Amino acid sequence: MNDWNEIYNTSKEWILEAGDYIREKMKSSINVSSKANQNDLVTDVDKAVEEFFIEKLKDKYPTHRLMGEEGSAELISNLNGTVWILDPIDGTVNFVHQECFFAVSLGIYHEGVGMVGFIYDVMKDELFTALKGHGAYVNGKKLDTVSNVSLQESILSVNVGWILEDRRLEYFVKEARGFRSYGSAALEIAYVAAGRLEAYISFALHPWDIAGGAVILKEVGGIVSNYEGRELTYLNKDTFIAANPAIHELLMDKLHN
Amino acid sequence: MNDWNEIYNTSKEWILEAGDYIREKMKSSINVSSKANQNDLVTDVDKAVEEFFIEKLKDKYPTHRLMGEEGSAELISNLNGTVWILDPIDGTVNFVHQECFFAVSLGIYHEGVGMVGFIYDVMKDELFTALKGHGAYVNGKKLDTVSNVSLQESILSVNVGWILEDRRLEYFVKEARGFRSYGSAALEIAYVAAGRLEAYISFALHPWDIAGGAVILKEVGGIVSNYEGRELTYLNKDTFIAANPAIHELLMDKLHN
Repeated sequence: MNDWNEIYNTSKEWILEAGDYIREKMKSSINVSSKANQNDLVTDVDKAVEEFFIEKLKDKYPTHRLMGEEGSAELISNLNGTVWILDPIDGTVNFVHQECFFAVSLGIYHEGVGMVGFIYDVMKDELFTALKGHGAYVNGKKLDTVSNVSLQESILSVNVGWILEDRRLEYFVKEARGFRSYGSAALEIAYVAAGRLEAYISFALHPWDIAGGAVILKEVGGIVSNYEGRELTYLNKDTFIAANPAIHELLMDKLHN
Repeated sequence: MNDWNEIYNTSKEWILEAGDYIREKMKSSINVSSKANQNDLVTDVDKAVEEFFIEKLKDKYPTHRLMGEEGSAELISNLNGTVWILDPIDGTVNFVHQECFFAVSLGIYHEGVGMVGFIYDVMKDELFTALKGHGAYVNGKKLDTVSNVSLQESILSVNVGWILEDRRLEYFVKEARGFRSYGSAALEIAYVAAGRLEAYISFALHPWDIAGGAVILKEVGGIVSNYEGRELTYLNKDTFIAANPAIHELLMDKLHN
């Protein structure tokens, strides 16, 4: 039997430890190397953080499996038992190019159900957390249930490339109060949970981009689905919507009716 | 005669003091009021910060004039002498809706020339600074000269509404490495200066949205102009481009030839 309070506390410690490591690597790399070397750095850090979690799991939770961006994914074809779905650095272009606006994202799933979620904006030191049934938090402050504000009062986040691909999205962009794009799916889902955005849409995300965010967003009453409104499998690349219930319904209505 | 080192140090203190005030107001307002009241809050804070600077100037630099969002603008029809161009809260939608991602923006101009620039991301506590001829800094760390990276290696920031208005911008969006949108012109100009973005474009900005950023960006070799490539007057609403020289040239080439 899993003790989810204990798993939550342990995994939170590991996330923060990974964040310390990333900040340290980022700092030493900036001091000694040029921007061109940042591509190697992101690969190194991705691998090192994934390896860190693999070792920790082997030691502490040997029956748990890890699905990560760096190769472990191949071994995972179902969500039986307990699976940790990890993105060591979500927003790699931001990491390389901006040296900020990236996050560690972790979702812990049990028999396919999201139990624990973390999204950690490493450079801002802003940690979004959730344990199923116990609400979601940002840096320890409880997040409110998402409000069903209208499209006209909403801020949407969509990478503009997707709008060029599905022009029906232009309606939403024109009607909404505002439009943002941050280049990190994990952070953008966290922002929907925190009420900074009302919806985030992407046409191509991996399970590790969204697994942590889905747990956090559901705790505050938000909806996740693929672009057709179907449930996510967390096993394959898919389209994605995170939204408050009203905007999600409006999207389904306008896009698929 | 103005002592620009002294003016720089004094105005920096005032900016930080204004930031403390805004954070305090934000915190007390979140505790006692709902999101609906944030619209009143932004108006109150805007006015209070502008009033704070007006009083400080009267006392310390009585010959200097202030151009601000909250009314003082009407009195300013030229940039003779020394003019402080202030936006107490740049990114008001973010302020109200996200409670972060907004900035205090200040440019101090002498006979039309930008001498001092500040952009202060209040909630992140990230301060971009510049004194003409002495380089630009973020939280005390010197910023590099902007790199002339190619469009394919660039991250662009444009509010998507402008792309729908001038479809020629789609080319840039498709070719670029990435696309972002943050909802604060001041921060977006600062990000171009910091190499987080290579270009920021808007079709409608006031002098106080850009005056601080222009000083900062010029210190690191970046270009500011209106959308037609003409020099900005800092007296009227205008279109706007901030970019590294290579991307600026490419924009002029593709848009106006």
